Amino acid sequence: VSGASGQEPGLPRQSRTVAEAGEHAIIERIRSRLGPAPDWLLVDAGDDAAVYEAPRNLVEVITTDAVVDGVHVDRRFVPPAAIGHRALAVNLSDLAAMGATPRLATLSLALPSDFPTDDLDALVDGMLALADRTRTRIVGGNVTSIAGPLVVDVTAIGCAHRRRVLRRGGARPGDYVFVSGTLGDARAGLAALRNRADEPASAAAHAVARYLQPEPRLRLGHLLARHKAATSAIDLSDGLADGLTQIAHAAGLGLEIEAAALPLHADTSAAVRAAGGDPAREALAGGDDYELLFTAPAKRKGPLRAVERLIDGLALTRVGVVTRTPGVAIIHPDGRREAVTGGYEHFVS
Amino acid sequence: VSGASGQEPGLPRQSRTVAEAGEHAIIERIRSRLGPAPDWLLVDAGDDAAVYEAPRNLVEVITTDAVVDGVHVDRRFVPPAAIGHRALAVNLSDLAAMGATPRLATLSLALPSDFPTDDLDALVDGMLALADRTRTRIVGGNVTSIAGPLVVDVTAIGCAHRRRVLRRGGARPGDYVFVSGTLGDARAGLAALRNRADEPASAAAHAVARYLQPEPRLRLGHLLARHKAATSAIDLSDGLADGLTQIAHAAGLGLEIEAAALPLHADTSAAVRAAGGDPAREALAGGDDYELLFTAPAKRKGPLRAVERLIDGLALTRVGVVTRTPGVAIIHPDGRREAVTGGYEHFVS
Repeated sequence: VSGASGQEPGLPRQSRTVAEAGEHAIIERIRSRLGPAPDWLLVDAGDDAAVYEAPRNLVEVITTDAVVDGVHVDRRFVPPAAIGHRALAVNLSDLAAMGATPRLATLSLALPSDFPTDDLDALVDGMLALADRTRTRIVGGNVTSIAGPLVVDVTAIGCAHRRRVLRRGGARPGDYVFVSGTLGDARAGLAALRNRADEPASAAAHAVARYLQPEPRLRLGHLLARHKAATSAIDLSDGLADGLTQIAHAAGLGLEIEAAALPLHADTSAAVRAAGGDPAREALAGGDDYELLFTAPAKRKGPLRAVERLIDGLALTRVGVVTRTPGVAIIHPDGRREAVTGGYEHFVS
Repeated sequence: VSGASGQEPGLPRQSRTVAEAGEHAIIERIRSRLGPAPDWLLVDAGDDAAVYEAPRNLVEVITTDAVVDGVHVDRRFVPPAAIGHRALAVNLSDLAAMGATPRLATLSLALPSDFPTDDLDALVDGMLALADRTRTRIVGGNVTSIAGPLVVDVTAIGCAHRRRVLRRGGARPGDYVFVSGTLGDARAGLAALRNRADEPASAAAHAVARYLQPEPRLRLGHLLARHKAATSAIDLSDGLADGLTQIAHAAGLGLEIEAAALPLHADTSAAVRAAGGDPAREALAGGDDYELLFTAPAKRKGPLRAVERLIDGLALTRVGVVTRTPGVAIIHPDGRREAVTGGYEHFVS
């Protein structure tokens, strides 16, 4: 095991597992990494609870999501830093889909007794790197042991202008349907990791990076909200088919999606074809991409153009249109219509 | 299995485990129990995140705590309703110790695939009964499967007046030390449940009830804060020895505690003596009572008397004094001094 904890090589290690270290030392390991408190954080981690100032003239947006080893990640091929990154990223992605700016989060860890302290350090550092970059302060948390798999539970809170919150249910007939970035990469990356756990998957490097380090589309969500450019939005944590179904269902309307328009990265598309697959189907099925799906008025194009100018680099692709007929239909290049059923729904949030 | 879900006996059950029910049905089961949204909840569970109004002219107080089967509870003898109650209660107890009024919470569940849907209903109902009584709205959450034990993770948020937050570190030399209620009951109740899992433990009924249904001392915390009656406070989630150590350490001072003054319930005291134990030692060691430990000025007695008049029924017992000499000392009836080391510290909150 190399020095993931930042310790000098060759120095004796006091404890190699969290059970050896004990709860007190674990907590100190984490708290020592948090950095100074922002001025709105009145009582930092270490009391019975943390105290913070409410944001002025803004509403608050809250979401919670867990990463469980064996369900959302597999410790055999997902490094601890990527697990920490993901546990925060999936929550920030929900905030992005609401057009909210993240502010703070809590971290609740259930650690198997043989969990290496080096892995704990790497997990926390992976989370804090994303937290620092997105100005999200971890204000507290909890550590417990578990006779079972690693559980990383995060609750994230952001803020937004009351009249600019992005909802799932605002699509109107005739709106265009957009997705950000490319789809299906994370699914391809996960497949590459599963198939070749001990071999650097250079051909799938892009896909693997997308799976291991999903990027919450906070700036896009913020810009869509600020410019009132979207009528509805959702993040694609559970895949495009699910997102389309949710957006249609929440509006009580339908969506017609052009299979040929779905944006795939060239490497992912080539890999899917090489494996005998259908890129559009992979784009529909693939979860974990954490891109945003949103609808925007077909006629009032100015706000979306302003957003596109400001998010340099991230592609926004028009993939379809909102219809009055409920349900989601994929239009294939040969004109065939295919009904999509998603049906995967979260308790929130 | 009897009708813990409120279903009519004799009706066919559609699914007996959460794996049979599926995530969508689980989420609907929970959401259907939440009741109408309060007016400050602008977007309820069901979107990417929940949206709520910040409290006006108040600061916010946040805490997170988990209940893990096999660590904090044992499903073999703790009913699911008590698990749900406890998962919220431990968080509300932290808010009480800060003098905060609860407002909202999120619920993150990791459920083994064979977890009975009846138990899920009972768990949620046990939590919601406490939530309703304390005006805490569950605004969202997350459900996942786990190849391991049940994990119930709650994050709770309350509000408080900025200048009235109760901290751990405010004790001053000469302050008196108080505890609410009685100590050691939960520990005795847990022992009774462990020893006689299948026999109604009538002799230990009080202790068992205290273990299964801990009552967060929200009204006491609120009154101590409102009347500025306490200089510091902490909840006794990890036992009196731990609480004393934390209060002394946070103030950089010492505590002298009279063993004979520690309040024990008559039944618990009798049970401890019958088993050959020392009641004071049980009171020191016992966690899970969720009473409040606080310090108050010895001279300015008015505020605490006002609190005592308003909390009818809950005893506040003076157990010691704050000293300039760091450390915690127990003074036994024979004059012997015993040093206490707690040393158990939470990552927060």
